[in-house]
Amino acid sequence: MKLARCEIENKVFWAKVDDQSDTLHVIVGAFSEWGPALTRSMSAGPCDDSLLPLSGETVPLSAARLLPPVEPVNRVVVAGANYAKHLAADFGLSSPPQPVAFLKAYGALIGANDELRYPPLTSKLDHEVELVVVIGDTDIDIEKPLDSVLGYTVGNDVSARDLQHSGPKGIGMDLFAAKSQDKTTGVGPWIVTRDEFPAGSPVVQLKLSVDGDLRQDGTTGDMTWDVGELIKFVQARSSFTAGDILFTGSPDGVGQGTGKFLNPGELVEATIEGIGTLANRVSEKKA
Amino acid sequence: MKLARCEIENKVFWAKVDDQSDTLHVIVGAFSEWGPALTRSMSAGPCDDSLLPLSGETVPLSAARLLPPVEPVNRVVVAGANYAKHLAADFGLSSPPQPVAFLKAYGALIGANDELRYPPLTSKLDHEVELVVVIGDTDIDIEKPLDSVLGYTVGNDVSARDLQHSGPKGIGMDLFAAKSQDKTTGVGPWIVTRDEFPAGSPVVQLKLSVDGDLRQDGTTGDMTWDVGELIKFVQARSSFTAGDILFTGSPDGVGQGTGKFLNPGELVEATIEGIGTLANRVSEKKA
Repeated sequence: MKLARCEIENKVFWAKVDDQSDTLHVIVGAFSEWGPALTRSMSAGPCDDSLLPLSGETVPLSAARLLPPVEPVNRVVVAGANYAKHLAADFGLSSPPQPVAFLKAYGALIGANDELRYPPLTSKLDHEVELVVVIGDTDIDIEKPLDSVLGYTVGNDVSARDLQHSGPKGIGMDLFAAKSQDKTTGVGPWIVTRDEFPAGSPVVQLKLSVDGDLRQDGTTGDMTWDVGELIKFVQARSSFTAGDILFTGSPDGVGQGTGKFLNPGELVEATIEGIGTLANRVSEKKA
Repeated sequence: MKLARCEIENKVFWAKVDDQSDTLHVIVGAFSEWGPALTRSMSAGPCDDSLLPLSGETVPLSAARLLPPVEPVNRVVVAGANYAKHLAADFGLSSPPQPVAFLKAYGALIGANDELRYPPLTSKLDHEVELVVVIGDTDIDIEKPLDSVLGYTVGNDVSARDLQHSGPKGIGMDLFAAKSQDKTTGVGPWIVTRDEFPAGSPVVQLKLSVDGDLRQDGTTGDMTWDVGELIKFVQARSSFTAGDILFTGSPDGVGQGTGKFLNPGELVEATIEGIGTLANRVSEKKA
């Protein structure tokens, strides 16, 4: 099942998506009201969509703006340094003994077809396609972390690389300036529930192209820590709430390694097998 | 004027505080509904409390739990490395050319008299008394950053120092593990509106004691970057929304430098002149 957070004429709502028939089935209420029950239903079998409080109303998918599938009250966690080749090829770093986790500002997020803002402080705007986990439950069984997953979506953890390396000596990378710039991080187009993937941490292909030129082409099978291990790592440090999302790191091929950074006007397309595509055009540099 | 976020019998509300008469005047609605107007009123003179939507109901202050004066939809930004002596004495670092900013998880926050959780992963739990700025407006005039301030409160940016230094080589300090542990960071007891301070960035004394032993005794006059400069720094990287809070760094005297870390059972009291006191007792180590 696909679940999207949508906007039509300033009305924001969640919907069950039937993209084959261009239809959104409107869901009533906030994620916290239906997400946990839906998530728990998948421990026993396929996702029980009778648990979704549908209004009965349908609207065309093509009429809606797709928003990031996460509410402003939730948080955005990134657990990176998760692909050894990305670290080696792009940063000259060996794989660390544990992931690197940090928070991203909600204001950094954009939806699947929104403009990607080129922030004025950077001259090295870079892309990072990532599998994004949607946490569906607040009660997480640390021995069964995947049971707390509602599903997966696509992320592009756009990074201002020059700012990333501007952090003070002795303190480290400035991940706030690099990763929380307003309206830069694509997330979406929707959540695909976890019952649509084989059991376990998903092994899927991730691709990113810029104006049709393939820049990243990896597989989540190359993750150093799988989805369950990342959830456990973060949860031990700072607890998840239902609706939070977790970025899981990017494979190699980013501008940091290739020298090919993003430019105004370019179309960035990030695709994950079995989920969908983000297509965000880079704006002119603007405040 | 003092403004608190309170809980009585699971009901959460904002209130105007009269601590002399043990009275809370209940405010109707979310911060976003009255915070911006109140903030703007102070550009012309004293805070215009006729702009507060009071319900008319009063309850005893002593009957309420004081919550962190920030709503879950808002974010918690920390702009640290702001006291040269703290950096030199406690970390052996010279003052960097710019502040260090990062995000703290909302779940890390506790109110003024709540228990301070001792997280299981750390053995070096440390204190950091800090002036906390409450941003009152979403439209920030970058040339007049202090006009966007509703007021100030007290923060104790409790840090797991061993985890802070566990970050991977080449990436830097693990500020997520150190600073976002559940239920560790005291904020409160209330917001004191900015008209109660002289114009400009406040120059006030900050003190922190543990079981009555004075550990930190500094002044915000020693900040490397004042409140206005910190707001501008953060805003250029990731925009504020009305109701967000900003920690502004801690003076010297923390356990990192003195070797005196926090222990279960200890009472941590953080006080800022003209604002008030946080009094949080450290729990046993617990998951």
